[in-house]
Amino acid sequence: MTDVDHPPSAAQQREAVVDLLGVLAYAELSAFERMASDAPLAPGLEQRTALGEMAVAEFGHFVALRDHLTAMGVDATGAMAPFVGPLDDFHDSTAPADWLEGLVKAYVGDGFASDFYREVAEYVDDVPTRELILAALADTGHAQFVVDQVRAAIAADETVGGRLALWARRLMGEALVQAQRVAVDRDAMATLLVGGGDLVKIGELLARLTARHTERMELLGLKS
Amino acid sequence: MTDVDHPPSAAQQREAVVDLLGVLAYAELSAFERMASDAPLAPGLEQRTALGEMAVAEFGHFVALRDHLTAMGVDATGAMAPFVGPLDDFHDSTAPADWLEGLVKAYVGDGFASDFYREVAEYVDDVPTRELILAALADTGHAQFVVDQVRAAIAADETVGGRLALWARRLMGEALVQAQRVAVDRDAMATLLVGGGDLVKIGELLARLTARHTERMELLGLKS
Repeated sequence: MTDVDHPPSAAQQREAVVDLLGVLAYAELSAFERMASDAPLAPGLEQRTALGEMAVAEFGHFVALRDHLTAMGVDATGAMAPFVGPLDDFHDSTAPADWLEGLVKAYVGDGFASDFYREVAEYVDDVPTRELILAALADTGHAQFVVDQVRAAIAADETVGGRLALWARRLMGEALVQAQRVAVDRDAMATLLVGGGDLVKIGELLARLTARHTERMELLGLKS
Repeated sequence: MTDVDHPPSAAQQREAVVDLLGVLAYAELSAFERMASDAPLAPGLEQRTALGEMAVAEFGHFVALRDHLTAMGVDATGAMAPFVGPLDDFHDSTAPADWLEGLVKAYVGDGFASDFYREVAEYVDDVPTRELILAALADTGHAQFVVDQVRAAIAADETVGGRLALWARRLMGEALVQAQRVAVDRDAMATLLVGGGDLVKIGELLARLTARHTERMELLGLKS
Protein backbone atom coordinates (compact mmCIF):
# COMPACT_ATOMS: atom_id res chain seq x y z
CA MET A 1 0.00 0.00 0.00
CA THR A 2 2.97 2.36 0.34
CA ASP A 3 5.06 4.07 -2.26
CA VAL A 4 8.24 1.94 -2.36
CA ASP A 5 10.52 4.97 -2.51
CA HIS A 6 8.89 6.86 0.38
CA PRO A 7 7.15 4.58 2.85
CA PRO A 8 5.08 6.83 5.16
CA SER A 9 5.92 6.87 8.86
CA ALA A 10 3.40 5.58 11.42
CA ALA A 11 2.54 9.20 12.30
CA GLN A 12 1.91 10.08 8.63
CA GLN A 13 -0.23 6.95 8.20
CA ARG A 14 -2.30 7.89 11.25
CA GLU A 15 -2.70 11.48 10.05
CA ALA A 16 -3.89 10.21 6.68
CA VAL A 17 -6.37 7.75 8.21
CA VAL A 18 -7.80 10.51 10.43
CA ASP A 19 -8.23 12.67 7.32
CA LEU A 20 -9.97 9.86 5.44
CA LEU A 21 -12.34 9.14 8.31
CA GLY A 22 -12.93 12.87 8.77
CA VAL A 23 -13.83 13.53 5.14
CA LEU A 24 -16.05 10.45 4.97
CA ALA A 25 -17.78 11.40 8.25
CA TYR A 26 -18.56 14.93 7.10
CA ALA A 27 -19.61 13.67 3.66
CA GLU A 28 -22.12 11.33 5.34
CA LEU A 29 -23.41 13.99 7.75
CA SER A 30 -23.91 16.57 5.02
CA ALA A 31 -25.41 13.99 2.64
CA PHE A 32 -27.91 13.09 5.37
CA GLU A 33 -28.96 16.72 5.81
CA ARG A 34 -29.18 17.48 2.09
CA MET A 35 -31.09 14.33 1.19
CA ALA A 36 -33.59 14.93 4.00
CA SER A 37 -33.97 18.54 2.80
CA ASP A 38 -34.48 17.39 -0.81
CA ALA A 39 -37.03 14.69 0.10
CA PRO A 40 -40.07 17.05 -0.07
CA LEU A 41 -39.37 17.47 -3.81
CA ALA A 42 -40.72 13.92 -4.25
CA PRO A 43 -43.90 13.49 -6.29
CA GLY A 44 -45.48 11.33 -3.56
CA LEU A 45 -45.08 10.25 0.04
CA GLU A 46 -43.65 6.83 -0.86
CA GLN A 47 -40.77 8.25 -2.89
CA ARG A 48 -40.26 10.90 -0.24
CA THR A 49 -39.96 8.20 2.41
CA ALA A 50 -37.51 6.24 0.27
CA LEU A 51 -35.16 9.24 0.09
CA GLY A 52 -35.62 9.68 3.85
CA GLU A 53 -34.48 6.09 4.34
CA MET A 54 -31.37 6.74 2.23
CA ALA A 55 -30.67 9.82 4.36
CA VAL A 56 -31.03 7.89 7.62
CA ALA A 57 -28.63 5.21 6.33
CA GLU A 58 -26.05 7.96 5.67
CA PHE A 59 -26.50 9.22 9.22
CA GLY A 60 -25.81 5.69 10.50
CA HIS A 61 -22.50 5.66 8.60
CA PHE A 62 -21.68 9.07 10.01
CA VAL A 63 -22.23 7.84 13.59
CA ALA A 64 -20.02 4.76 12.99
CA LEU A 65 -17.20 6.90 11.56
CA ARG A 66 -17.46 9.50 14.34
CA ASP A 67 -17.44 6.81 17.04
CA HIS A 68 -14.44 5.15 15.41
CA LEU A 69 -12.52 8.45 15.46
CA THR A 70 -13.43 8.92 19.12
CA ALA A 71 -12.28 5.36 19.92
CA MET A 72 -8.95 6.21 18.22
CA GLY A 73 -8.60 9.09 20.71
CA VAL A 74 -9.26 11.67 17.98
CA ASP A 75 -11.61 14.66 18.28
CA ALA A 76 -14.14 13.89 15.54
CA THR A 77 -15.17 17.53 15.11
CA GLY A 78 -11.55 18.54 14.52
CA ALA A 79 -11.07 15.68 12.03
CA MET A 80 -14.11 16.81 10.01
CA ALA A 81 -13.36 20.55 10.14
CA PRO A 82 -10.98 20.77 7.12
CA PHE A 83 -13.62 19.24 4.84
CA VAL A 84 -16.61 21.37 5.82
CA GLY A 85 -15.77 24.11 3.30
CA PRO A 86 -15.21 21.90 0.23
CA LEU A 87 -18.25 19.69 0.88
CA ASP A 88 -20.56 22.63 1.67
CA ASP A 89 -19.37 24.33 -1.53
CA PHE A 90 -20.14 21.17 -3.48
CA HIS A 91 -23.67 20.99 -2.06
CA ASP A 92 -24.32 24.72 -2.47
CA SER A 93 -23.26 24.58 -6.14
CA THR A 94 -25.43 21.51 -6.82
CA ALA A 95 -28.78 22.22 -5.15
CA PRO A 96 -31.30 20.10 -7.12
CA ALA A 97 -34.02 22.03 -8.95
CA ASP A 98 -36.47 19.12 -8.88
CA TRP A 99 -37.08 15.60 -7.67
CA LEU A 100 -35.21 13.81 -10.49
CA GLU A 101 -32.14 16.01 -10.05
CA GLY A 102 -32.28 15.25 -6.32
CA LEU A 103 -32.48 11.51 -7.01
CA VAL A 104 -29.60 11.56 -9.49
CA LYS A 105 -27.53 13.57 -7.02
CA ALA A 106 -28.23 11.05 -4.24
CA TYR A 107 -27.32 8.20 -6.59
CA VAL A 108 -24.17 9.79 -7.99
CA GLY A 109 -23.04 10.92 -4.54
CA ASP A 110 -23.74 7.56 -2.92
CA GLY A 111 -21.98 5.75 -5.77
CA PHE A 112 -18.97 8.05 -5.70
CA ALA A 113 -18.72 7.60 -1.92
CA SER A 114 -18.94 3.80 -2.30
CA ASP A 115 -16.14 3.79 -4.88
CA PHE A 116 -14.08 5.99 -2.62
CA TYR A 117 -14.69 3.64 0.35
CA ARG A 118 -13.56 0.73 -1.80
CA GLU A 119 -10.35 2.53 -2.87
CA VAL A 120 -9.66 3.63 0.68
CA ALA A 121 -10.15 0.15 2.14
CA GLU A 122 -7.27 -1.14 0.00
CA TYR A 123 -4.89 1.49 1.27
CA VAL A 124 -5.64 1.33 4.99
CA ASP A 125 -3.50 -1.10 7.01
CA ASP A 126 -5.45 -0.74 10.25
CA VAL A 127 -7.88 -3.71 10.40
CA PRO A 128 -10.74 -2.18 12.50
CA THR A 129 -10.73 0.89 10.23
CA ARG A 130 -10.83 -1.25 7.10
CA GLU A 131 -13.70 -3.33 8.51
CA LEU A 132 -15.66 -0.19 9.36
CA ILE A 133 -15.20 1.12 5.83
CA LEU A 134 -16.29 -2.17 4.25
CA ALA A 135 -19.36 -2.31 6.52
CA ALA A 136 -20.42 1.17 5.38
CA LEU A 137 -19.92 0.02 1.79
CA ALA A 138 -22.07 -3.11 2.19
CA ASP A 139 -24.96 -1.08 3.60
CA THR A 140 -25.71 1.17 0.62
CA GLY A 141 -28.51 -0.81 -1.00
CA HIS A 142 -30.97 1.88 -2.00
CA ALA A 143 -29.65 2.31 -5.53
CA GLN A 144 -32.26 0.16 -7.29
CA PHE A 145 -35.06 2.48 -6.17
CA VAL A 146 -33.29 5.40 -7.89
CA VAL A 147 -32.60 3.41 -11.05
CA ASP A 148 -36.28 2.44 -11.33
CA GLN A 149 -37.52 6.00 -10.80
CA VAL A 150 -35.12 7.60 -13.29
CA ARG A 151 -35.65 4.96 -16.00
CA ALA A 152 -39.43 5.36 -15.66
CA ALA A 153 -39.14 9.14 -15.99
CA ILE A 154 -37.00 8.80 -19.14
CA ALA A 155 -39.41 6.26 -20.61
CA ALA A 156 -42.27 8.74 -20.07
CA ASP A 157 -40.39 11.72 -21.56
CA GLU A 158 -37.28 11.33 -23.74
CA THR A 159 -36.03 14.89 -23.14
CA VAL A 160 -35.56 14.03 -19.44
CA GLY A 161 -32.59 11.80 -20.30
CA GLY A 162 -30.60 14.59 -21.93
CA ARG A 163 -31.27 17.03 -19.13
CA LEU A 164 -30.30 14.55 -16.40
CA ALA A 165 -27.17 13.47 -18.29
CA LEU A 166 -26.00 17.10 -18.28
CA TRP A 167 -26.86 17.39 -14.60
CA ALA A 168 -24.87 14.25 -13.73
CA ARG A 169 -21.86 15.61 -15.64
CA ARG A 170 -22.10 18.84 -13.69
CA LEU A 171 -22.26 16.91 -10.40
CA MET A 172 -19.16 14.92 -11.31
CA GLY A 173 -17.35 18.09 -12.41
CA GLU A 174 -18.09 19.91 -9.16
CA ALA A 175 -17.10 16.83 -7.15
CA LEU A 176 -13.74 16.60 -8.94
CA VAL A 177 -13.08 20.34 -8.40
CA GLN A 178 -13.56 19.92 -4.66
CA ALA A 179 -11.64 16.61 -4.56
CA GLN A 180 -8.64 18.31 -6.15
CA ARG A 181 -8.88 21.17 -3.65
CA VAL A 182 -8.86 18.63 -0.80
CA ALA A 183 -5.97 16.66 -2.34
CA VAL A 184 -3.84 19.82 -2.54
CA ASP A 185 -4.60 20.83 1.06
CA ARG A 186 -4.26 17.43 2.69
CA ASP A 187 -0.87 16.07 1.82
CA ALA A 188 -0.83 13.04 4.08
CA MET A 189 -4.12 11.72 2.73
CA ALA A 190 -3.10 12.17 -0.89
CA THR A 191 0.18 10.41 -0.13
CA LEU A 192 -1.60 7.47 1.46
CA LEU A 193 -4.04 7.10 -1.42
CA VAL A 194 -1.72 7.49 -4.39
CA GLY A 195 1.85 7.60 -3.07
CA GLY A 196 3.88 10.75 -2.60
CA GLY A 197 2.66 13.20 -5.24
CA ASP A 198 2.63 10.46 -7.88
CA LEU A 199 0.72 12.11 -10.74
CA VAL A 200 0.38 8.86 -12.69
CA LYS A 201 -1.30 7.18 -9.73
CA ILE A 202 -3.57 10.19 -9.14
CA GLY A 203 -4.56 9.92 -12.80
CA GLU A 204 -5.24 6.20 -12.46
CA LEU A 205 -7.38 6.75 -9.36
CA LEU A 206 -9.46 9.42 -11.11
CA ALA A 207 -9.78 7.17 -14.17
CA ARG A 208 -11.14 4.31 -12.03
CA LEU A 209 -13.63 6.62 -10.29
CA THR A 210 -14.75 8.07 -13.62
CA ALA A 211 -15.13 4.60 -15.18
CA ARG A 212 -17.43 3.47 -12.38
CA HIS A 213 -19.41 6.69 -12.64
CA THR A 214 -19.91 5.95 -16.34
CA GLU A 215 -21.21 2.46 -15.52
CA ARG A 216 -23.72 3.95 -13.09
CA MET A 217 -24.91 6.48 -15.68
CA GLU A 218 -25.54 3.60 -18.10
CA LEU A 219 -27.59 1.80 -15.45
CA LEU A 220 -29.72 4.94 -15.11
CA GLY A 221 -30.11 5.07 -18.89
CA LEU A 222 -28.06 8.28 -19.15
CA LYS A 223 -25.14 9.18 -21.41
CA SER A 224 -22.15 10.17 -19.26
CA MET B 1 -63.11 6.65 26.32
CA THR B 2 -66.46 7.19 24.61
CA ASP B 3 -69.03 9.86 24.97
CA VAL B 4 -71.75 8.19 27.03
CA ASP B 5 -74.54 9.65 24.90
CA HIS B 6 -72.99 8.72 21.54
CA PRO B 7 -70.65 5.72 21.72
CA PRO B 8 -68.82 5.54 18.37
CA SER B 9 -69.35 2.50 16.18
CA ALA B 10 -66.45 0.14 15.43
CA ALA B 11 -66.15 1.70 11.97
CA GLN B 12 -65.99 5.21 13.42
CA GLN B 13 -63.40 4.10 15.97
CA ARG B 14 -61.27 2.58 13.22
CA GLU B 15 -61.58 5.68 11.04
CA ALA B 16 -60.49 7.81 13.97
CA VAL B 17 -57.51 5.59 14.80
CA VAL B 18 -56.38 5.67 11.15
CA ASP B 19 -56.58 9.48 11.25
CA LEU B 20 -54.57 9.62 14.48
CA LEU B 21 -51.88 7.33 13.12
CA GLY B 22 -51.88 9.24 9.84
CA VAL B 23 -51.43 12.67 11.41
CA LEU B 24 -48.74 11.39 13.77
CA ALA B 25 -46.91 9.63 10.92
CA TYR B 26 -46.84 12.72 8.72
CA ALA B 27 -45.90 14.90 11.70
CA GLU B 28 -42.89 12.64 12.34
CA LEU B 29 -41.87 12.48 8.67
CA SER B 30 -42.04 16.26 8.22
CA ALA B 31 -40.34 16.89 11.59
CA PHE B 32 -37.50 14.62 10.44
CA GLU B 33 -37.04 16.56 7.19
CA ARG B 34 -37.30 19.99 8.80
CA MET B 35 -34.95 19.19 11.70
CA ALA B 36 -32.35 17.74 9.34
CA SER B 37 -32.70 20.86 7.14
CA ASP B 38 -32.30 23.16 10.17
CA ALA B 39 -29.26 21.29 11.56
CA PRO B 40 -26.69 23.31 9.53
CA LEU B 41 -27.78 26.40 11.51
CA ALA B 42 -25.89 24.90 14.47
CA PRO B 43 -22.85 26.82 15.78
CA GLY B 44 -20.72 23.66 15.71
CA LEU B 45 -20.63 20.10 14.45
CA GLU B 46 -21.53 18.58 17.83
CA GLN B 47 -24.77 20.54 18.16
CA ARG B 48 -25.49 19.89 14.50
CA THR B 49 -25.10 16.15 15.08
CA ALA B 50 -27.36 16.31 18.14
CA LEU B 51 -30.18 17.80 16.05
CA GLY B 52 -29.48 15.14 13.41
CA GLU B 53 -29.95 12.46 16.07
CA MET B 54 -33.29 14.00 17.07
CA ALA B 55 -34.32 13.99 13.40
CA VAL B 56 -33.38 10.33 12.94
CA ALA B 57 -35.39 9.39 16.06
CA GLU B 58 -38.45 11.07 14.48
CA PHE B 59 -37.92 9.05 11.30
CA GLY B 60 -37.87 5.88 13.42
CA HIS B 61 -41.28 6.81 14.86
CA PHE B 62 -42.55 7.52 11.37
CA VAL B 63 -41.49 4.06 10.15
CA ALA B 64 -43.19 2.37 13.14
CA LEU B 65 -46.44 4.29 12.53
CA ARG B 66 -46.40 3.63 8.77
CA ASP B 67 -45.72 -0.08 9.29
CA HIS B 68 -48.52 -0.25 11.84
CA LEU B 69 -50.95 1.30 9.35
CA THR B 70 -49.81 -1.18 6.70
CA ALA B 71 -50.28 -4.08 9.14
CA MET B 72 -53.85 -2.83 9.77
CA GLY B 73 -54.45 -3.17 6.01
CA VAL B 74 -54.50 0.61 5.56
CA ASP B 75 -52.67 2.52 2.79
CA ALA B 76 -50.28 4.67 4.85
CA THR B 77 -49.92 7.30 2.12
CA GLY B 78 -53.69 7.75 1.99
CA ALA B 79 -53.89 7.98 5.78
CA MET B 80 -51.29 10.76 5.86
CA ALA B 81 -52.64 12.70 2.88
CA PRO B 82 -55.28 14.83 4.70
CA PHE B 83 -52.62 16.20 7.08
CA VAL B 84 -49.95 17.17 4.54
CA GLY B 85 -51.45 20.63 3.95
CA PRO B 86 -51.91 21.69 7.59
CA LEU B 87 -48.50 20.41 8.71
CA ASP B 88 -46.66 21.88 5.72
CA ASP B 89 -48.39 25.20 6.37
CA PHE B 90 -47.26 25.04 10.00
CA HIS B 91 -43.65 24.42 9.00
CA ASP B 92 -43.67 27.02 6.22
CA SER B 93 -45.00 29.68 8.60
CA THR B 94 -42.42 28.80 11.28
CA ALA B 95 -39.10 28.45 9.43
CA PRO B 96 -36.44 29.21 12.08
CA ALA B 97 -34.23 32.25 11.41
CA ASP B 98 -31.33 30.92 13.47
CA TRP B 99 -30.04 27.99 15.50
CA LEU B 100 -31.81 28.89 18.77
CA GLU B 101 -35.16 29.30 17.01
CA GLY B 102 -34.58 25.91 15.38
CA LEU B 103 -33.82 24.31 18.74
CA VAL B 104 -36.87 25.83 20.44
CA LYS B 105 -39.03 24.68 17.53
CA ALA B 106 -37.67 21.12 17.80
CA TYR B 107 -38.29 21.18 21.57
CA VAL B 108 -41.78 22.69 21.40
CA GLY B 109 -42.77 20.40 18.53
CA ASP B 110 -41.37 17.28 20.17
CA GLY B 111 -43.03 18.20 23.46
CA PHE B 112 -46.37 18.97 21.84
CA ALA B 113 -46.20 15.65 19.96
CA SER B 114 -45.39 13.78 23.20
CA ASP B 115 -48.37 15.36 24.97
CA PHE B 116 -50.55 14.47 22.04
CA TYR B 117 -49.30 10.85 22.08
CA ARG B 118 -50.10 10.69 25.79
CA GLU B 119 -53.64 12.02 25.27
CA VAL B 120 -54.20 9.72 22.31
CA ALA B 121 -53.01 6.63 24.17
CA GLU B 122 -55.79 7.10 26.73
CA TYR B 123 -58.47 7.21 24.07
CA VAL B 124 -57.40 4.29 21.90
CA ASP B 125 -58.91 0.89 22.79
CA ASP B 126 -56.78 -1.14 20.40
CA VAL B 127 -53.89 -2.58 22.46
CA PRO B 128 -51.16 -2.86 19.76
CA THR B 129 -51.87 0.71 18.67
CA ARG B 130 -51.68 1.99 22.25
CA GLU B 131 -48.39 0.14 22.81
CA LEU B 132 -46.94 1.62 19.62
CA ILE B 133 -47.90 5.11 20.76
CA LEU B 134 -46.42 4.62 24.23
CA ALA B 135 -43.18 3.25 22.72
CA ALA B 136 -42.82 6.36 20.55
CA LEU B 137 -43.44 8.46 23.66
CA ALA B 138 -40.77 6.70 25.73
CA ASP B 139 -38.15 7.23 23.05
CA THR B 140 -38.05 11.06 23.00
CA GLY B 141 -35.10 11.66 25.32
CA HIS B 142 -33.24 14.44 23.55
CA ALA B 143 -34.91 17.28 25.45
CA GLN B 144 -32.13 17.88 27.98
CA PHE B 145 -29.70 18.82 25.20
CA VAL B 146 -32.05 21.58 24.06
CA VAL B 147 -32.67 22.83 27.61
CA ASP B 148 -28.91 23.11 28.25
CA GLN B 149 -28.26 24.96 24.98
CA VAL B 150 -31.10 27.46 25.39
CA ARG B 151 -30.37 28.18 29.08
CA ALA B 152 -26.70 28.78 28.26
CA ALA B 153 -27.64 31.20 25.47
CA ILE B 154 -29.96 33.14 27.81
CA ALA B 155 -27.27 33.23 30.52
CA ALA B 156 -24.85 34.71 27.98
CA ASP B 157 -27.32 37.34 26.68
CA GLU B 158 -30.48 38.31 28.55
CA THR B 159 -32.26 39.69 25.46
CA VAL B 160 -32.26 36.18 23.95
CA GLY B 161 -34.88 35.04 26.49
CA GLY B 162 -37.46 37.65 25.43
CA ARG B 163 -36.96 36.95 21.76
CA LEU B 164 -37.27 33.17 22.16
CA ALA B 165 -40.33 33.52 24.42
CA LEU B 166 -42.08 35.44 21.63
CA TRP B 167 -40.96 32.81 19.11
CA ALA B 168 -42.33 29.96 21.25
CA ARG B 169 -45.67 31.78 21.57
CA ARG B 170 -45.81 32.14 17.81
CA LEU B 171 -45.04 28.41 17.34
CA MET B 172 -47.84 27.47 19.75
CA GLY B 173 -50.24 29.88 18.05
CA GLU B 174 -49.54 28.49 14.56
CA ALA B 175 -49.83 24.92 15.90
CA LEU B 176 -53.24 25.65 17.43
CA VAL B 177 -54.48 27.27 14.20
CA GLN B 178 -53.59 24.12 12.25
CA ALA B 179 -54.91 21.80 14.99
CA GLN B 180 -58.28 23.55 14.84
CA ARG B 181 -58.32 23.26 11.05
CA VAL B 182 -57.66 19.51 11.35
CA ALA B 183 -60.29 19.09 14.09
CA VAL B 184 -62.95 20.73 11.89
CA ASP B 185 -62.05 18.59 8.85
CA ARG B 186 -61.67 15.26 10.62
CA ASP B 187 -64.87 14.59 12.50
CA ALA B 188 -64.18 11.01 13.55
CA MET B 189 -60.83 11.86 15.13
CA ALA B 190 -62.23 14.84 17.03
CA THR B 191 -65.09 12.66 18.24
CA LEU B 192 -62.71 9.98 19.49
CA LEU B 193 -60.50 12.47 21.32
CA VAL B 194 -63.11 14.65 22.96
CA GLY B 195 -66.50 13.08 22.39
CA GLY B 196 -69.01 14.19 19.77
CA GLY B 197 -68.44 17.91 19.34
CA ASP B 198 -68.21 18.39 23.10
CA LEU B 199 -66.87 21.96 23.35
CA VAL B 200 -66.16 21.65 27.07
CA LYS B 201 -63.94 18.63 26.48
CA ILE B 202 -62.17 20.32 23.55
CA GLY B 203 -61.49 23.23 25.87
CA GLU B 204 -60.15 20.90 28.56
CA LEU B 205 -57.86 19.13 26.08
CA LEU B 206 -56.44 22.44 24.83
CA ALA B 207 -56.02 23.61 28.45
CA ARG B 208 -54.01 20.48 29.30
CA LEU B 209 -51.78 20.86 26.22
CA THR B 210 -51.23 24.55 26.97
CA ALA B 211 -50.41 23.84 30.64
CA ARG B 212 -47.72 21.35 29.65
CA HIS B 213 -46.33 23.77 27.07
CA THR B 214 -46.05 26.37 29.85
CA GLU B 215 -44.10 23.90 32.02
CA ARG B 216 -41.68 23.27 29.16
CA MET B 217 -41.16 26.99 28.62
CA GLU B 218 -40.27 27.34 32.30
CA LEU B 219 -37.72 24.55 31.96
CA LEU B 220 -36.13 26.45 29.09
CA GLY B 221 -36.10 29.61 31.22
CA LEU B 222 -38.68 31.34 28.98
CA LYS B 223 -41.89 33.15 29.89
CA SER B 224 -44.80 31.52 28.07
